[in-house]
Amino acid sequence: MTKTSASIPQLGKVYLIGAGPGAADLITVRGAKLLAAADVVFHDALVEPEMLAYCPQAEKIAVGKRCGKHSTAQKFINKRLVDAAQKHQLIVRLKGGDPMIFGRADEEIAELQEAGIEVEVVPGITAALAAAASLKQSLTLRGVARSVAFSTQAKAVDATNGVNRAVDTANTSIDLPTADTLVIYMGRNEAVSIAKQLIAQGRVMTTPVRIIEAISTKRERSLSLTLAEMANGLASDWFDGQAPALLLVGAVFGNRLENTDILTNSRLSA
Amino acid sequence: MTKTSASIPQLGKVYLIGAGPGAADLITVRGAKLLAAADVVFHDALVEPEMLAYCPQAEKIAVGKRCGKHSTAQKFINKRLVDAAQKHQLIVRLKGGDPMIFGRADEEIAELQEAGIEVEVVPGITAALAAAASLKQSLTLRGVARSVAFSTQAKAVDATNGVNRAVDTANTSIDLPTADTLVIYMGRNEAVSIAKQLIAQGRVMTTPVRIIEAISTKRERSLSLTLAEMANGLASDWFDGQAPALLLVGAVFGNRLENTDILTNSRLSA
Repeated sequence: MTKTSASIPQLGKVYLIGAGPGAADLITVRGAKLLAAADVVFHDALVEPEMLAYCPQAEKIAVGKRCGKHSTAQKFINKRLVDAAQKHQLIVRLKGGDPMIFGRADEEIAELQEAGIEVEVVPGITAALAAAASLKQSLTLRGVARSVAFSTQAKAVDATNGVNRAVDTANTSIDLPTADTLVIYMGRNEAVSIAKQLIAQGRVMTTPVRIIEAISTKRERSLSLTLAEMANGLASDWFDGQAPALLLVGAVFGNRLENTDILTNSRLSA
Repeated sequence: MTKTSASIPQLGKVYLIGAGPGAADLITVRGAKLLAAADVVFHDALVEPEMLAYCPQAEKIAVGKRCGKHSTAQKFINKRLVDAAQKHQLIVRLKGGDPMIFGRADEEIAELQEAGIEVEVVPGITAALAAAASLKQSLTLRGVARSVAFSTQAKAVDATNGVNRAVDTANTSIDLPTADTLVIYMGRNEAVSIAKQLIAQGRVMTTPVRIIEAISTKRERSLSLTLAEMANGLASDWFDGQAPALLLVGAVFGNRLENTDILTNSRLSA
């Protein structure tokens, strides 16, 4: 890669930066500094407006899909990044959560590297960890859980991290990992079938589940229920439908949380 | 909890903050701001000195275990946090990586809440995601991997996130999750047995493995090998022995990485 970029020194560098779960101050210091120095910022449509206050100087371009709304195809995003690196020096691709989980970063990295453009990745706080922080509950716990898996059952993972899509769940093959604690991204539409599958895999009906939406934003809300209740569709009416939702399943969530309401509109906190 | 703290309003608030993988600018903006406002900072012994430059005003106290060296017992850390909240207003407990993965945060939170002390958790970049960023390789990939699990096989998880301990591997029961991509924290001493177990579980011998040490620091180094090679002990001589090490296993690592050396002292980058 350096071979190519050395012969075309005027090419800019592209930073794939994780914006984190939503709150503007949950981006990394490195990410915020790069935003402040960027010529152009391509951001997911779901990135909070407050996040873009870090880069008043930059040209800001919304890309990426959002729930049921107009979206930019991944190939077109890739092309725009390559084009931008031919015109600008510091290009930021700002992605929700962490770029390396359910983020389609590989497609962007591959296309940029093929064009001889230098790429650097700045990690971000992924939704599962921000949820654990909000819930004040570790995803691993001595004697209870020593592994945690992040999975998605959505047929197609959107260009935007954390977005749910209306997919035909009837034909979705379910292949869930077997970790002690399980976090499912973009699982809203498959909540019932995921719960049924986990019970079929041997998880007890009373396994605690937390569902959390719009993590770390003012609109954050969470729901506490059991696996059996989720299998029976109890979460269906609760979902907002617009906000990204995360399903968290495992014995750790029965550990210490005071909130035992089936439905709560307020943040679960101790 | 609020009941108790209302009657003792002079109690301080404790922030459990994830320092991230090592580099000072991979902490969150929120974490850095809280450090700058802290009265006292209890930090893992492994936290990089540069990170503590955020809090010149604070009393800084190293706690937590480190590889083979003197360490502070978890119960004693819990007690010191409670004591500090009775003397100071803003107390930071700075933990390597993310507090909610392999970090024993629950014990600290429980003890603080029992004492009526308010606790807030600020997430951090966990080592697996920082490793993915350094390797420029997503942990999930369309058509290749739609789940990733983080696990530890160390018998005891240290108070310090990401620390390896010399444990008797002969008696360690191995119970690895089945996600497409697997990241093992603190797995250095169990590398051979983990590889053998994964092969026994049905992973192909040629499954790519990456091992990465001292992620995001100047001492970062990584190794590329196959599962069969790890099972044969090829990584054993490579380990530094002092730095935290992460094992990453899965087909995604055969995707696009140019570096195919068995041993490399330089950072794997494209």
